[in-house]
Amino acid sequence: MSKSRFQLLLSFMAILGVSSQVFAQWQALPEKAPAPSDNPTTPAKVVLGRSLFFDPRLSSTGTVSCNSCHNVMLGGDDNRPVSMGVHGKTGSRSAPTVWNAAFNSSQFWDGRAKSLEEQVLGPLTNPPEMGLKNDAVAIKRIRAIKGYRPMFEKAFGGKQTITINNLVRAIAAYERTLITPNSPYDRYVKGDKSAMTAKQVKGMKTFSSLGCTSCHMGPDFNGPSMAPGTGFFMKFPTYTNNEYVKKYDLMADKGRGDKHEWKVPTLRNIALTAPYFHNGKVDTLQEAVRVMARTQLDKKLNKAQVDKLVAFLNALTGEFPVQPMPRLPATDGWTLTTK
Amino acid sequence: MSKSRFQLLLSFMAILGVSSQVFAQWQALPEKAPAPSDNPTTPAKVVLGRSLFFDPRLSSTGTVSCNSCHNVMLGGDDNRPVSMGVHGKTGSRSAPTVWNAAFNSSQFWDGRAKSLEEQVLGPLTNPPEMGLKNDAVAIKRIRAIKGYRPMFEKAFGGKQTITINNLVRAIAAYERTLITPNSPYDRYVKGDKSAMTAKQVKGMKTFSSLGCTSCHMGPDFNGPSMAPGTGFFMKFPTYTNNEYVKKYDLMADKGRGDKHEWKVPTLRNIALTAPYFHNGKVDTLQEAVRVMARTQLDKKLNKAQVDKLVAFLNALTGEFPVQPMPRLPATDGWTLTTK
Repeated sequence: MSKSRFQLLLSFMAILGVSSQVFAQWQALPEKAPAPSDNPTTPAKVVLGRSLFFDPRLSSTGTVSCNSCHNVMLGGDDNRPVSMGVHGKTGSRSAPTVWNAAFNSSQFWDGRAKSLEEQVLGPLTNPPEMGLKNDAVAIKRIRAIKGYRPMFEKAFGGKQTITINNLVRAIAAYERTLITPNSPYDRYVKGDKSAMTAKQVKGMKTFSSLGCTSCHMGPDFNGPSMAPGTGFFMKFPTYTNNEYVKKYDLMADKGRGDKHEWKVPTLRNIALTAPYFHNGKVDTLQEAVRVMARTQLDKKLNKAQVDKLVAFLNALTGEFPVQPMPRLPATDGWTLTTK
Repeated sequence: MSKSRFQLLLSFMAILGVSSQVFAQWQALPEKAPAPSDNPTTPAKVVLGRSLFFDPRLSSTGTVSCNSCHNVMLGGDDNRPVSMGVHGKTGSRSAPTVWNAAFNSSQFWDGRAKSLEEQVLGPLTNPPEMGLKNDAVAIKRIRAIKGYRPMFEKAFGGKQTITINNLVRAIAAYERTLITPNSPYDRYVKGDKSAMTAKQVKGMKTFSSLGCTSCHMGPDFNGPSMAPGTGFFMKFPTYTNNEYVKKYDLMADKGRGDKHEWKVPTLRNIALTAPYFHNGKVDTLQEAVRVMARTQLDKKLNKAQVDKLVAFLNALTGEFPVQPMPRLPATDGWTLTTK
C-alpha cells in the first residue's frame, strides 16, 4: 500500500471513530457473539433456529436448507464457486461462511443486510436459492408442521408466535452460536507461543508489514470494531492494471452501489472455504493471496512470501464445536411439495 | 384377499421355507441389525460411514449427499414424490426411507440390490441422483480429502484402504445403526397395553383381519424373515379394475422384471414419509390405505376402517436416536467442483 493510500485509510478510519491502534493489536476471537437487544440469544431460540437452519422444507422444492450452501459440517460454505439452489439454479456470488458471521457488522458481499436477521430473508425468496414465492409461504409451511408450534412458543412465549420475524430471529440466534475459537493464532496471541509454527509466525509478520491488516484487522480479520449494521467496505480491485483482473473477471460484478466496493470478509477458516472472492473464481489460497497483494496493495509477492502468508492463514482455522443433529419436526403424513 | 389368493400365498411362502405362523405373530423391532460376515458393524466404520453419508462432495455438483434424499433428520426420506438430485434433475421413483432399511432383505423398490453395500453404488453414479461419472471419481475425491485417510485406516486397518468397496461398507455400516425402536406398537407388543390407544388397537386388528399382514408381516412389516438378498416381492397393483390405477398412474412403471412386482416396503414410520408408493403420487396416508385395500385386497374401506388403520400406522412411528452431527474432513484450501 502506498503512503498516500495508507493516510487516506487512516483518515477514513478517523471519520468512523476508529482508533489507528486497532491495527497494531492482534486479537483473539471472542467466545460469544453480541446479540441485538430485541433478540437475545436463548437456548430455546438456538434449538429452534438450528432446526430451521437444517430444514429443506423452507425451499420451494424441499431440497435446499440454509445448511445446503452454508454447510456447518464443513467450513460454513459449500466449496463451490457459486451456490446451487432449487432446480439446480445458480447465483452470481459465492456463499460466504456462516461460521463467525455474527462478527460481521453487515451481511452479504455488498453488506446490504444490516443484521443476521435481515440476511435470512434474502435466500428464502431468492429464485436461485430457496425460491419460495414470498415470506408468507415460508410461514404457511412452518405452521403446517405441527411440531414447530411448541418450539416457537418455547422460544418466544405466548401464542401465534410463528411469524417471519420470529423465524429469522431464531435462525440468527442459532448463527450467533457458530463460533470457532482456539485456532493456533488465537492460542498464540493468548500467550501459547508454541501454538503457531515458526513459518506461521513469519507469515503473521508479513501479513502485517505488507499492509493486509489495513483491512483485515480485528479479531475476525474483517475490519475494525463498528456498530452493528455499519459495514466495513473496500474497493476491490483497487489496482486494475494487472493480469488477475481479466483472468478472474474481477470487474464484471460492480458490487456495492456499482462502485466495486465489497464488505471486507473474515479470514477465519479461510483455508476451508475455497474457492475465493465474491465470484468464487480463484481456486487456491496461494493464488488468492497473490491476487489480493497485486490488486489491493499493488505488490507482486515471491513464492516465499506466499508460502508464509498461506501458512499464517492456515493458523486461522479454529475449533468447530460439536453440535447435536437436529431432529426435524415431522411432515405428519402428507407432503409440502406435491402441489 | 380371496381364499384362492391366500392359498397361493401360503404355497409361495412354503416354497420359500417360511412358516405360516409368522403371520400370526406381532413382533417388536430388533434393536440391532444383522451385518454380513464380511462387514461387521464397528464404531470406527459407523463414524466414517456417517461422515460419508452426509458428504455432498460425493456428488458431481457438490450439493447432493446420501442424506439429501434420505434425510435422517426427518423420516429418512425427502417427502417429495420423486427425489431431486444434481442440477435439479428428478428420477422416476420415490426415495424409500433409510431408517430400518437394514431390515430389508433386498434394496431399491425393485429389490435389485441384494445388500445395503450394493445399494450404495446406485445413487453415486446415477445421473439424476449424485451424478458422478464413475466409482473412480468418488474414490479420487475422497482420496483428495486428507482427513478421510486416517478415518478409513482406523475403520479398515492398514494402508490404501480408500477403495469403493470400503466406502460402501462404511456407509452400509452406518445405515445399520439407523433403527427406530420403541414405537407405541413395539411397547404394546412387549406388554405395555397402555402404549397404544383403543383406536390403534382396533386398527391393529383390522390390519390383520383385512389381510394386510399377508404381505406387511414381521417386525419391520416388510415381509417374512428371509436370507439377506432374497427379497420379498408382490404384484402391485394386483386388482386393476378400479379408479385408483388410472388416477395415480400405477401401471406406468412396470417394476421388477416388467411384471409390476415390487419389494414389499416397511411400514415403520410410514406416517412421516409421505407421499406414498413407488411413484410418490399419493399424498396422504388415508388415501394410501384406500388404494392398498382396493388394489391388493379388492376391498373398499369405509371411513371408520380407514381411520382405524391410519391410527394403527401412526403407532409404528418409533424413537429416532439422537446422533452427533458429523464434522466433515476439510476440503483443504481448494475446491472439488471448479474444474
